[in-house]
Amino acid sequence: MRYELYYWPQIQGRGEFVRLALEEAGADYVDVARGKGGMAKLERLMQRKSSEPPPFAPPFLKAGNLLIAQTANILSFLGARHGLAPKSEAGRLWVNQLQLTIADLVVEAHDTHHPIAASLYYEDQKAEAARAAQCFIKERLPKFLGYFEHVLAKNGKSGFLAGRALSYADLSLFQVVDGLRYAFPRAMMTEEKNLPRTIALHDRVAARPRISAYLSSGHRIPFNQHGIFRHYEELDA
Amino acid sequence: MRYELYYWPQIQGRGEFVRLALEEAGADYVDVARGKGGMAKLERLMQRKSSEPPPFAPPFLKAGNLLIAQTANILSFLGARHGLAPKSEAGRLWVNQLQLTIADLVVEAHDTHHPIAASLYYEDQKAEAARAAQCFIKERLPKFLGYFEHVLAKNGKSGFLAGRALSYADLSLFQVVDGLRYAFPRAMMTEEKNLPRTIALHDRVAARPRISAYLSSGHRIPFNQHGIFRHYEELDA
Repeated sequence: MRYELYYWPQIQGRGEFVRLALEEAGADYVDVARGKGGMAKLERLMQRKSSEPPPFAPPFLKAGNLLIAQTANILSFLGARHGLAPKSEAGRLWVNQLQLTIADLVVEAHDTHHPIAASLYYEDQKAEAARAAQCFIKERLPKFLGYFEHVLAKNGKSGFLAGRALSYADLSLFQVVDGLRYAFPRAMMTEEKNLPRTIALHDRVAARPRISAYLSSGHRIPFNQHGIFRHYEELDA
Repeated sequence: MRYELYYWPQIQGRGEFVRLALEEAGADYVDVARGKGGMAKLERLMQRKSSEPPPFAPPFLKAGNLLIAQTANILSFLGARHGLAPKSEAGRLWVNQLQLTIADLVVEAHDTHHPIAASLYYEDQKAEAARAAQCFIKERLPKFLGYFEHVLAKNGKSGFLAGRALSYADLSLFQVVDGLRYAFPRAMMTEEKNLPRTIALHDRVAARPRISAYLSSGHRIPFNQHGIFRHYEELDA
């Protein structure tokens, strides 16, 4: 069965967490909106006439008869199917918990450049963004990343967030580190000194054969100023 | 087995979504931080020395040997154990998807009064909050609630969000309507005209024997100016 991923074709965004899981799994999938006529297909599924349960927003994944939305929900589905999550109930809950904490961090990282409303231009909320980014860098970034560093330390020598094997939460933490480096290179340069395990995990994920092939394939959309992680020099103070 | 819920004792907050599920299930539970010495117990579990997988933030639920954090994660666990979610994989994914969309709405509702940083006082971000609330009321509130109204319409005569039985997503939608009415009474007065099914579901949840008993028991913490949903007259424009 070929999965169909539906996500905005111009950005990594939340879709990238799903792409990384599909790539690591070696799954057969098509990134629908990036193909010919793909945006029309995405928009059709967003329309409420569809008989599927309607998703609120992309990304969503078509897997046979299932249409699954919400990043953490898609990942919990893929994790179970492709060995990217523990099999035990306790393990599955733990990885989902980690993913939802990553999702919280992702919202806050996004809101540094759009603290007032996602529908307004950055230029219309620049002053507010500067204040928000300052608080994020000073308080939230160290708190979130320090938490994952601690989780890695507690999990001992495996080097993964959960148990002894790679899970989708590890892939997502890789993506967050990559995104934060793009958005806040100066802040991350300082922060990474406190994150040896997180950075080691990032590098280990990047070196996995399928992920490494994906990263160097040209298929990965580069970070840019339309996604979750955006680089504004003035916000990286 | 008695569940132990850990959450801030002064507010409904995210803990209330868990409390409603526990109440509807008729589960045996203790709201630890509201008991004698409870805050010390909550803080102990937050400390990183603990041998449990450390939660990033409350709420978390102790269920035997499991320590589960993240609201949607706790609810998916309780939903499966207490018949508050469908048994099929498709049904479980759908209810989790709805819950995660509710969680997104909850973040945005909170951020209307704290758009810059949760660590700053409202008074230090009043002007920004006014702009954020205006966008929220005009764009986001109708979009989110209109989505759930549509889901209810598509699900036909059952009156529930998913399938033919009550799920934890229905309880959560009840809570969101209640919270939004507290925070934005004027905006909701207008909005509710477009939400007959959502309001009917709200009322039906409120009338369920266990929920109704809980709401009138005095155990439910009243909405106040410290939680997710806060009422500032100037934001309800």
